[in-house]
Amino acid sequence: MGSGENIFRPGSSSDGEVRAGIVVTGTEVLNATIPDRNGPWLSEQLAELGVELVEILIVADHPGDLASGLEHMKSVGIDLIITTGGLGPTADDLTAEVVASFAGREMELDPEMEARIAAILARFAANSRLELSTDAINDANRKQAMIPVGAVALNPIGTAPGLIVPGQSEADPLVLVLPGPPRELQPMWKAALEEPLLRSVIDQATRLESYRLRMFGTPESELAMSLREIEKEGLPFDGLEITTCLRKGEVEIDVRYREAAAGSAGKLREELARRHARTLYSFDGRTVDEVVSGLLQGRRLALAESCSAGLLAARITDVPGSSDYFAGGVVCYSNEAKRDLLGVEQDLLDRHGAVSAEVAEAMATGALERFDADVAVSITGIAGPGGGSEEKPVGLVHFNVQTGEGKTRAAAPIIPGGRRDVRERSALVAMHLLREMLA
Amino acid sequence: MGSGENIFRPGSSSDGEVRAGIVVTGTEVLNATIPDRNGPWLSEQLAELGVELVEILIVADHPGDLASGLEHMKSVGIDLIITTGGLGPTADDLTAEVVASFAGREMELDPEMEARIAAILARFAANSRLELSTDAINDANRKQAMIPVGAVALNPIGTAPGLIVPGQSEADPLVLVLPGPPRELQPMWKAALEEPLLRSVIDQATRLESYRLRMFGTPESELAMSLREIEKEGLPFDGLEITTCLRKGEVEIDVRYREAAAGSAGKLREELARRHARTLYSFDGRTVDEVVSGLLQGRRLALAESCSAGLLAARITDVPGSSDYFAGGVVCYSNEAKRDLLGVEQDLLDRHGAVSAEVAEAMATGALERFDADVAVSITGIAGPGGGSEEKPVGLVHFNVQTGEGKTRAAAPIIPGGRRDVRERSALVAMHLLREMLA
Repeated sequence: MGSGENIFRPGSSSDGEVRAGIVVTGTEVLNATIPDRNGPWLSEQLAELGVELVEILIVADHPGDLASGLEHMKSVGIDLIITTGGLGPTADDLTAEVVASFAGREMELDPEMEARIAAILARFAANSRLELSTDAINDANRKQAMIPVGAVALNPIGTAPGLIVPGQSEADPLVLVLPGPPRELQPMWKAALEEPLLRSVIDQATRLESYRLRMFGTPESELAMSLREIEKEGLPFDGLEITTCLRKGEVEIDVRYREAAAGSAGKLREELARRHARTLYSFDGRTVDEVVSGLLQGRRLALAESCSAGLLAARITDVPGSSDYFAGGVVCYSNEAKRDLLGVEQDLLDRHGAVSAEVAEAMATGALERFDADVAVSITGIAGPGGGSEEKPVGLVHFNVQTGEGKTRAAAPIIPGGRRDVRERSALVAMHLLREMLA
Repeated sequence: MGSGENIFRPGSSSDGEVRAGIVVTGTEVLNATIPDRNGPWLSEQLAELGVELVEILIVADHPGDLASGLEHMKSVGIDLIITTGGLGPTADDLTAEVVASFAGREMELDPEMEARIAAILARFAANSRLELSTDAINDANRKQAMIPVGAVALNPIGTAPGLIVPGQSEADPLVLVLPGPPRELQPMWKAALEEPLLRSVIDQATRLESYRLRMFGTPESELAMSLREIEKEGLPFDGLEITTCLRKGEVEIDVRYREAAAGSAGKLREELARRHARTLYSFDGRTVDEVVSGLLQGRRLALAESCSAGLLAARITDVPGSSDYFAGGVVCYSNEAKRDLLGVEQDLLDRHGAVSAEVAEAMATGALERFDADVAVSITGIAGPGGGSEEKPVGLVHFNVQTGEGKTRAAAPIIPGGRRDVRERSALVAMHLLREMLA
């Protein structure tokens, strides 16, 4: 759902650069059975700390593949390797052993950890009222309590401890071993950050500041042109990392910078705001949904949706507390529904067709009245694949926004893409029309 | 949003094994600005062809990182490397050059390709009515038309050609170079499969047969128990790869097998159908949305949604052709909307509350009547985070399905999870109630 481009990067100085790599182990991730949620999450954590993520490697649960991945990361000069997954109690969970061998360290039983895991398992067995074989539990328990000599063990969140494993020399990468389930990995990452062994590597990085801008209605290419012009006019971009990304019909601009470049980063924001005053709507990372939610406080919203068929209602109500301002909507997929539930006149439907400015206006008026609302939005269009004509092609969508005070705003863009794109983009366009109307 | 487990794998024989690796280039993917959609998609394509995917590597748009990734894949004995991204017209799109150098091949201008790209750009410029600098276009054009000597160029879907680049010897991996945008990558992959150079590698793999089952209402752990029992009772699992995955509230079972194991695969399907007759609803990979769409042909459906607020309508209408049977729905978020648009009596709302079996029933009856439908579904529940009580906790959702002939079905589960889970799961439960009612 997006395309992105990294336009400028901070000058790569050897000061303050810590290079990291992530190894995700999991056949189910490699097989595309489940998406990897740990790589992107860790990527964001590392960025906040100013650590440069060099690569993410996804391998199956085969010890050989993990081992060669670790060697590869070492060979490209990575300082910190984070592994996720492969810490379970079963035989194919071999991450700890493979990492120990990579770091040239023996495994030894940590009796304190064994006792801790035994207590967790006993509690688990009691809660689940399962009859678990004591032998099997003890084996699994012992396997998970084996720790590489010289490593720091991190307390289990589930039943598996994490590890921080140093290499044989200063030049070798430090390996942080984390469990696969995100609900275990995320708290354990926070705990690992308290450990001096990990801090000794991470603290060498210079933290980055950042901000995110959002635009709607400016093509990414036009933004790229603005950025080039701003640089040409003399604003120094050294030390700024500017990433632009087209996501679900909006352009996001992420700017990351070191302290020293804070002045340039601030001026860049001002320059972009000046050049794109009409389309740059969020300076603090807030989404259009959050902005509109704020604007709707104290009002009463109603919807009339045809082609988007509930997508706008679902989006509005995705925000907790939306029941304060959202009265409801009609999904009027058929002409009868437009007529019977919203009071659109049959004559209007006959003369102009369901996808027309006239029907869109009548739908919004109907929603305003039937729900006793003070602002209403209507959407009627041709989502495809069928139903298009030369005069009214697939992608043509009519919008109408009305307030109780009689203000009206209409639009009728032709939205590109397939059925799903047209429907989802319709809800987005409606959010922005609503934002402009209420702002 | 799922968890997966790979339970059994086919015996790894050296016959028919082709090993593949994927290199995803893109700083925006590595930075978690956009998710990688190409790795998982290609993973599924390779699995269908019986090609073993060894690893996916995600790197930034730095030529050095891509080059070392390619060398690593070669060093672990990968036969086919697929790269995605880095084919654009800008200076940091360097994949073609890096791959050429990896394969020991010079780049040369392909005049035919240059003309083809020029024609595409001219068409693009005419359509977008942009004023584009001719020099800049020519430069970009020429860059994209540079092809490694001895490589096969694949026609552009956007403006960038793909490449199939052989190494210096038979033992070297073949590199397939594809563009980053999924709408370009997917058709180009299909085109690449027609090329003898790629087929010469892929045809060495033994194709896998496969089927997918879907269940609703059986926990994954119970399914795992069934699988263990079936194996214990003597059905040989050799040569079957069985993956179970909990995805969006349903359990998916993927079974992949070589020809020789077709008998076991068939018996496994029969055994699972026998043991889980009530919950196993799809034997051919069809989703509940597709099954329900089939059942709704010739009928007329109406909806009354409170907490799901349009999500069920959006799901129903996501299927092309749904206008044949979907009349419409009311998103009755407020009590007034339930009363004014669906005719739910105020007295019922006062006595039982909006989240009650009585109001759910009245909502469905109202939808049936107002839309002149012959089947209607209602959903009213507490999505949270606020609004719960001891008697009616967050997650409690009342459903009612009614037909014009007077058949009724009600349910009131407590759905676990956060606001979004409760809302999305509500739409799923409603789909299954509708399926059971119409089957």
